[in-house]
Amino acid sequence: MNYSETKNTTSLALLTDFYEITMAYGFWKHNMHEQNAVFNLFFRSNPFDGGFTIAAGLETAIDYLNKFHFCRADIDYLRSLKGNDSRPLFDEKFLEYLTTMEFDCDVEAIQEGTVVFPNEPLIRVKGPILQCQLIESALLNIINFQTLIATKSARINLAAKGEPVMEFGLRRAQGIDGSISATRAAFIGGCSGTSNVLAAYHLGIPALGTHAHSWVQAFEDEPAAFDAFAAALPTNTIFLVDTYNTPKGIDNAIEAAKKVEAQGYRIKGIRLDSGDLAYLSQLARKKLNEAGLQHMKIVASNDLDEYLISSLKQQEAAIDSWGIGTKLVTAFDQPALGGVYKLAAIETKTGEWLDRIKLSEQSIKVNIPGIQQVKRFYRNGVMAGDMIYDQRKDLSGPVKMIDPSDPTRTKILDKASLSCEDLLVPVLKKGKCVYQQEPILKLQQRTSQQLDLLDKSIKRFVNPHIYPVGIEETLYNRRLELIVKYKQDKQG
Amino acid sequence: MNYSETKNTTSLALLTDFYEITMAYGFWKHNMHEQNAVFNLFFRSNPFDGGFTIAAGLETAIDYLNKFHFCRADIDYLRSLKGNDSRPLFDEKFLEYLTTMEFDCDVEAIQEGTVVFPNEPLIRVKGPILQCQLIESALLNIINFQTLIATKSARINLAAKGEPVMEFGLRRAQGIDGSISATRAAFIGGCSGTSNVLAAYHLGIPALGTHAHSWVQAFEDEPAAFDAFAAALPTNTIFLVDTYNTPKGIDNAIEAAKKVEAQGYRIKGIRLDSGDLAYLSQLARKKLNEAGLQHMKIVASNDLDEYLISSLKQQEAAIDSWGIGTKLVTAFDQPALGGVYKLAAIETKTGEWLDRIKLSEQSIKVNIPGIQQVKRFYRNGVMAGDMIYDQRKDLSGPVKMIDPSDPTRTKILDKASLSCEDLLVPVLKKGKCVYQQEPILKLQQRTSQQLDLLDKSIKRFVNPHIYPVGIEETLYNRRLELIVKYKQDKQG
Repeated sequence: MNYSETKNTTSLALLTDFYEITMAYGFWKHNMHEQNAVFNLFFRSNPFDGGFTIAAGLETAIDYLNKFHFCRADIDYLRSLKGNDSRPLFDEKFLEYLTTMEFDCDVEAIQEGTVVFPNEPLIRVKGPILQCQLIESALLNIINFQTLIATKSARINLAAKGEPVMEFGLRRAQGIDGSISATRAAFIGGCSGTSNVLAAYHLGIPALGTHAHSWVQAFEDEPAAFDAFAAALPTNTIFLVDTYNTPKGIDNAIEAAKKVEAQGYRIKGIRLDSGDLAYLSQLARKKLNEAGLQHMKIVASNDLDEYLISSLKQQEAAIDSWGIGTKLVTAFDQPALGGVYKLAAIETKTGEWLDRIKLSEQSIKVNIPGIQQVKRFYRNGVMAGDMIYDQRKDLSGPVKMIDPSDPTRTKILDKASLSCEDLLVPVLKKGKCVYQQEPILKLQQRTSQQLDLLDKSIKRFVNPHIYPVGIEETLYNRRLELIVKYKQDKQG
Repeated sequence: MNYSETKNTTSLALLTDFYEITMAYGFWKHNMHEQNAVFNLFFRSNPFDGGFTIAAGLETAIDYLNKFHFCRADIDYLRSLKGNDSRPLFDEKFLEYLTTMEFDCDVEAIQEGTVVFPNEPLIRVKGPILQCQLIESALLNIINFQTLIATKSARINLAAKGEPVMEFGLRRAQGIDGSISATRAAFIGGCSGTSNVLAAYHLGIPALGTHAHSWVQAFEDEPAAFDAFAAALPTNTIFLVDTYNTPKGIDNAIEAAKKVEAQGYRIKGIRLDSGDLAYLSQLARKKLNEAGLQHMKIVASNDLDEYLISSLKQQEAAIDSWGIGTKLVTAFDQPALGGVYKLAAIETKTGEWLDRIKLSEQSIKVNIPGIQQVKRFYRNGVMAGDMIYDQRKDLSGPVKMIDPSDPTRTKILDKASLSCEDLLVPVLKKGKCVYQQEPILKLQQRTSQQLDLLDKSIKRFVNPHIYPVGIEETLYNRRLELIVKYKQDKQG
């Protein structure tokens, strides 16, 4: 199996859960396939017990949607599938329909790098229910993962307090574009560059790296290895000093650096990859300074994350930049975001929109119905609260929002006294892209600017303050009515 | 960015950590690039606090190696990289060398689906050090992830005790081929099929699925939704019964099933996706049986893993098959294997092989030197122990192996009284594939057969017995000597 090849023999239309296709078939059989529906992609809690989330993955999702179509190989495969009576599962006419179908949904989304919160639709899809359904799995795959990693990266970069964080995760990522997606999201979250050369090339971001222990092992001893590396790459040398013994490795790095610097080069630094990073970094800083090598930076790596970085900073570790692999690209302490994609409204054949919910034993898990938009309010330049509302609602004058998890918590927001903006922007109209994609550096800048607008109590790692997100009052009441109604009589 | 497209403009040679390329350049500058070396890919502990690991990813790795080459776009990119003096980092002659270089290493590996243990080389690469180095990151990326997921899948399938486990993880996987890799490894570990249609197509395995809550929500009420689904797909219907209220949903499913069965069809079953699965499955079984629908199966999903399945079985849940997503494809409780790739020997210009180690403050983390092979011994048809040895060692007669974590634990193994086999088999010779790739079903069968050969104390989830893996005595002693030697004098 070769992914890069096989992907050209089929489109990505089959990158979907099988039930999306059986449901599509069911809708087609009942002539409901072109009935319009609204689906929202959202998550129910911030990852890592944190106070915020960073939206990411939209550009990748748009690329997928722009190319959405079934090609011959896809259809041939679907034709080959059988039911439990060994006959073809799908009518030939349905397969024909898929072949000629053009994606023509309206898609709105929150821009990448935006701070987002639970229950807010990151993506809203409106269009023929068959199409909405077919794209569910791929959208979730793309948005769940990149949003998770961008959030982890933002947390790690917050912990590093502006010092460069390099993403070194290729070897622990999930496959080839698992790694490229992770690199992309890590960069949006604030990382300065990546060790993954293919990702650096495709994303147009810096490729970074030092050398491995194997370099040192390949030579008779460490001084010979360091001299050789600096001679080959005098303009790009960071010595890894822990192959045999770190303090001695630091001394050897200093000796090697002095020789090369005497020829007019500047050695970039050293890397610590094991042991007590607080103690060793302070020791290294002292030795480097005593040798007149104040400009040489100290890079640390070894299973770091936001908690370890914070702890090292508290211990006044003399670390200038951070290499983060496994804990970042796998989001080790919570490796899935858990985003979902739920039907919120459906249009009748007479053009009336009906709200829809799914019940749950936990009422917090009942989704929000309607055609939603999110309004963010700012007070004195700081984010003051987000309100999920139905875009058909007239919002002139003060509006009340209600916390869905505690209806006694309400907030009255007045557009006259607060500045505000809608977060969802048009991305595709009738299937055609209307969104100007942004350079990845712009997305990284947005993350940083957005985090600056967020109160620091919400950004802390332990017991963060909960940012207020409410449902506009009339929508809140509509949802309550639906819950009561479906509990009573909609089961038939 | 579009992965499927961009991958064709470059090869996968850039799917590597940047330091592999700077080291390659360093070796080339010092005319060491064609010096032969031996690298081993291994991990240091079984994932999930478990007693075993299932090797996977080899076929994907072989595909990568078979196509390994630098194309023009790769070289153009490398040419564009600058050092901190803003001049090109790499000599043009080095780039020429990469362009014409052909991969010609010898690769040996343990076959997919084999039970493996810490410190055993899953892959051994022998050849020019520059080439060994360039392939490190991609091999780790591929083998780490697939081995992790195959192991998780094997554990989940052990918990399910032969009942079908379906992999439903697309929406929580890391990108497109993150999901396909996960599906592949999950199947090797024992899953019966996947919801991921693209993966099913490429791997030639069953595509499986039911329907979503949105199907039910799209109709006026649940009975109408169930009738419509069964009418459209009478040969492939599993009703999801928890959109509004599970007990009522079971009743509605039974009514819908009766109608369709009256027309001569067989409904496959129902799916429970929330609530108390032990209680609800027993309730559903009772109701289905009372309705004469004994043949209808009960599928359960909702963040399941091996522990929850075991618990549900202990509670005598009436579940016939299991849909597993997030916890499987992310290996939620330990989302990285931590496999490494270490230099173990290097050939001098006069043809002598020198053993190499990397030291660590924890002596258990010091790698094993030499040109390794793994011999597995069987006693009465059950795996009795594995011995890592240097293939240059004559093993006629009884051999002693020593536990590297406790040298007082030794074992004498006699090939005369025990059957045994070498686990590493040739995969590439001088860069040419000599390995006959196997159908994926064969790999799944190997996993199952291998687990049957493993004592059940090693397969349990809590405090498993530790399977004996030792180092052959002369290799053990050689490693000890090297540790002492490098601690004393190899730092210069």
